[in-house]
Amino acid sequence: MKIYQQTQIVGAIDMKIAAARIAEGFIAYSQGRVQVPPVQNFSFEQANGDCCVKSAWIEGSETFTVKISTGFYDNPAKGLASNDGLMLVLCAQTGAPKALLQDEGWLTCIRTALAGQIAAKLLAPSVITGIGILGCGVQAQMQLEQLVPLTDCRKLTVWGRNPAALEAYRQFADSLGFSVTTTQDAREVAQNANLIVTTTPSREPLLQSGWIQPGTHITAVGADGGGKQELDTHLVARADVIAVDSVQQCSQYGEVSHAVKQGLIVGEQLLELGLLLEGKVQGRDNDRQITLADLTGVAVQDAQIAGYAMQACAEALPGL
Amino acid sequence: MKIYQQTQIVGAIDMKIAAARIAEGFIAYSQGRVQVPPVQNFSFEQANGDCCVKSAWIEGSETFTVKISTGFYDNPAKGLASNDGLMLVLCAQTGAPKALLQDEGWLTCIRTALAGQIAAKLLAPSVITGIGILGCGVQAQMQLEQLVPLTDCRKLTVWGRNPAALEAYRQFADSLGFSVTTTQDAREVAQNANLIVTTTPSREPLLQSGWIQPGTHITAVGADGGGKQELDTHLVARADVIAVDSVQQCSQYGEVSHAVKQGLIVGEQLLELGLLLEGKVQGRDNDRQITLADLTGVAVQDAQIAGYAMQACAEALPGL
Repeated sequence: MKIYQQTQIVGAIDMKIAAARIAEGFIAYSQGRVQVPPVQNFSFEQANGDCCVKSAWIEGSETFTVKISTGFYDNPAKGLASNDGLMLVLCAQTGAPKALLQDEGWLTCIRTALAGQIAAKLLAPSVITGIGILGCGVQAQMQLEQLVPLTDCRKLTVWGRNPAALEAYRQFADSLGFSVTTTQDAREVAQNANLIVTTTPSREPLLQSGWIQPGTHITAVGADGGGKQELDTHLVARADVIAVDSVQQCSQYGEVSHAVKQGLIVGEQLLELGLLLEGKVQGRDNDRQITLADLTGVAVQDAQIAGYAMQACAEALPGL
Repeated sequence: MKIYQQTQIVGAIDMKIAAARIAEGFIAYSQGRVQVPPVQNFSFEQANGDCCVKSAWIEGSETFTVKISTGFYDNPAKGLASNDGLMLVLCAQTGAPKALLQDEGWLTCIRTALAGQIAAKLLAPSVITGIGILGCGVQAQMQLEQLVPLTDCRKLTVWGRNPAALEAYRQFADSLGFSVTTTQDAREVAQNANLIVTTTPSREPLLQSGWIQPGTHITAVGADGGGKQELDTHLVARADVIAVDSVQQCSQYGEVSHAVKQGLIVGEQLLELGLLLEGKVQGRDNDRQITLADLTGVAVQDAQIAGYAMQACAEALPGL
């Protein structure tokens, strides 16, 4: 079994190829060609932590993947990162473990950011007048990085609660060439941006329906587990197009789950990214529509990024 | 993260300590102190293979475990073992991966054999007049090895379909000091033995109720997934004591699941090993009773054997 460390993985991956693999994964998933067993979740209340195990195999592909990701939210006080994790790639012909990717959660972050890029490419309005980001963490950074190749817009409004984190994000975005407005008022994001990405672990709505301009696209990636919510359910209901990575997962615990439970929308309104990518369903019709992409993170993304990372590392580091 | 290979793990483990840890795990499980997310299963039909991912955390313990085990049944024709796998031990305080145990499935085999030992210790009749084994594989060997410390009985009858495998098993058992009868007629096992362990992947009953002598204890470990069955359902129904590792799993796909579905027994008859070990329920009353232990393999066993293996390897190999 090959073992690759985070720095080796980061150095080996080409983002364009990775994005293409993620898109292929979404298509296979929506075609029903992926075995995705139930997600395993642990809750470590004594340590303010959790862990999830996501596994997937695209039928016919040479490998399958088991991904372990952890979030321990008191870690920073101990000088440790909150998130950790690894991925295992196994041979679908013999069962032999082929690679251990000690990515410390990086691949999960990247595959999530690339899903955001895919959603924006599919659904953003034709002219992006301002980008808005909710949250100042690693995912907020990666989402912005993955939007850079999609648009020339360099006007950014970023919302956060912590002034120091906002300032750090400003410096990061500035280094990418953005003109940055920081704010602690989420309404300001809605006023300044028509492409918004929400990346927080919020458990109450941060963006209200009435604030959102016609034509806006919102990608919500924060609500990846029970009880999390970043968007007003009336905003979800108001959207002309509601895209999801997985109808099943988003109905259980994504943004749309809250609107479904309140009877504001029905499951049939949800369009999977895989169907949009294949052109089997219609996304945005015009630049007045509000579009939403609810991304809970599907194991097929892990399988695709891990399979590619293993291949890229083997090519970049043939001596290992 | 420490990485240990199979040979290092085999060399480090003390079976008595391992058995005690497995017993503690069963007790914690039956007390409801274990987080056991749903098992993840894959089916690789193109390669006649499967994979399961089992994870568990005993609340309060320092580590939790994710176990991947694979079975690819065409591997022997390629010169590879059918079973492979590994276990990951992670810190329940920070989420950090602590050890990768590249045991190639050995720890799963051992924790299963030790569960068989525990069941026999709890339920075997006071005088063991003969041991019977169904199957000639690795698990059939390990089960016998783990019975040796429990009894002075060295009279063995082993059933199998393949004469060459039977002969190989005879040599193995002979080396342990057994007087061995090999047979292709399972009835002979029932006639000669009052402590029987069934270890095959059979999908139809091998042992019929009418063949079994009063006083016999049977441990069935083969039916670890849907569709598998080694015992006549009337034999299950006839048993005076029906022990299980997990009421939930055994009701789904163990030996007892078939008898439950046929209405021959009810869930309330099932006694978990953890309750028997704690003395909270009564096992065998007398030497005329027939007792059964249906073992499907619970993730808490993996968590316990992996946590112990990590500790034992660290002590045995302090330089690593």
